[in-house]
Amino acid sequence: MERKNKVEVINDLLGYEGLKIIQRPDIFNFSLDSTILADFVTINSSTKQIIDLGCGNGYIPIFLTLRTKAHITGIEIQEEIADLAIRSVKLNNLEEQITIKNMDMKEVPSNYAKEKIDVITCNPPYFPYTPESLINESTYQTIARHEVKITLDEVLKIANSTLKDGGIFAMVHRSERLIDILESFRRHTIEPKRIRFVYPKTNSTVSLAVMVEGIKSTKKGGLKILPPLYVNNTDGSYTEEILKIFNYKKGE
Amino acid sequence: MERKNKVEVINDLLGYEGLKIIQRPDIFNFSLDSTILADFVTINSSTKQIIDLGCGNGYIPIFLTLRTKAHITGIEIQEEIADLAIRSVKLNNLEEQITIKNMDMKEVPSNYAKEKIDVITCNPPYFPYTPESLINESTYQTIARHEVKITLDEVLKIANSTLKDGGIFAMVHRSERLIDILESFRRHTIEPKRIRFVYPKTNSTVSLAVMVEGIKSTKKGGLKILPPLYVNNTDGSYTEEILKIFNYKKGE
Repeated sequence: MERKNKVEVINDLLGYEGLKIIQRPDIFNFSLDSTILADFVTINSSTKQIIDLGCGNGYIPIFLTLRTKAHITGIEIQEEIADLAIRSVKLNNLEEQITIKNMDMKEVPSNYAKEKIDVITCNPPYFPYTPESLINESTYQTIARHEVKITLDEVLKIANSTLKDGGIFAMVHRSERLIDILESFRRHTIEPKRIRFVYPKTNSTVSLAVMVEGIKSTKKGGLKILPPLYVNNTDGSYTEEILKIFNYKKGE
Repeated sequence: MERKNKVEVINDLLGYEGLKIIQRPDIFNFSLDSTILADFVTINSSTKQIIDLGCGNGYIPIFLTLRTKAHITGIEIQEEIADLAIRSVKLNNLEEQITIKNMDMKEVPSNYAKEKIDVITCNPPYFPYTPESLINESTYQTIARHEVKITLDEVLKIANSTLKDGGIFAMVHRSERLIDILESFRRHTIEPKRIRFVYPKTNSTVSLAVMVEGIKSTKKGGLKILPPLYVNNTDGSYTEEILKIFNYKKGE
């Protein structure tokens, strides 16, 4: 694997405990969506095994160590990006709690015993793949952002095949794809239970992102639409709630 | 029809133009949900024919006269309630613009030429019908609030059979039934385009109501999740936006 001549930056992972993350400006940087998903997903004291599908540079697994002692496995198909994640895990001395696998997430169901997996998270590619997807984007970004290697429905199929009954799947995606998302959840018998819409600003006229959490093989109904999450105030500063997520304290 | 010995009250319809509505305290009273739906639905200058399915005492048709010159037909299955609506229409001298029909909404598709209907609104029964639905409720309220005479999916089927292609269907319902609602819309080829969640208070932890608007026989996608609608401030007073709806000015 070629690593030389690539600019890498070590940034603070937003979060109180002083965690670090290695990022490459030519690939992608800080992901707000990953942060809010790691904050949103339901985790409790009986959560023992978590998988993050498409972990990128490891943002979600590293953030989740602030919330749980469960073991977290990050799955990343792109070798160079998985390498960033592995080195970020080492940098934070989290090798015991986090395992990064350079693997196609489609291989996850056959590699993990489903009765053991309590929680799955995923910040998947948001955009349908078209020939135009390649224009003006590196292959790294195209794969991370467009449905080249994996589609929304395939993600749900993998989640269903990997989770234990009663296990939790939480995803962040584009709000405008809400109906496809909910249909996919139900098609793969993961019943949506919590939805939270994300608005860029407190005065935004439309929501851009949505977080959806469901439970595998449970009865239908009981959906809760949570309060909106606003990212920025009208003056562009972060809202109080976002700042609180950025300053997450262990055990909160 | 028996009308004597029933207490009736004439209230101001919330709205700037001084409209009145006849209500019977033993049936139901002021419906906030109808008001916000009448405010939410997309109406433009080419809207000529509107049908309100399950119009109750006529709240939506009467409110809509503040927004449009289109003809509005209110369909109400319960004779005594349709009678209230008819008399409210007369009280406001709106007989030319509004027609109230005492009819089962299932008969609407065969009675209205679908190429003429531009917009349909519906504030349907919210709760699945169970034997317990009858306990502690009058028959009037049971029929209005529970799926005794009509189910969610039947409403969508009627809307699809009645609307012209490109016509608009807007509904208010319980947020917890969002997935059933969206599935029903798509099943009957009405693609959801605008969704707005309603929260009882600015600090509510969960949304209770949702308004969904779709377009018949159009391509999938393009869904917008609008900003939340808060009904009350934390001190229980109405929010500025709700007060603005209550003081709707003709032609706004």
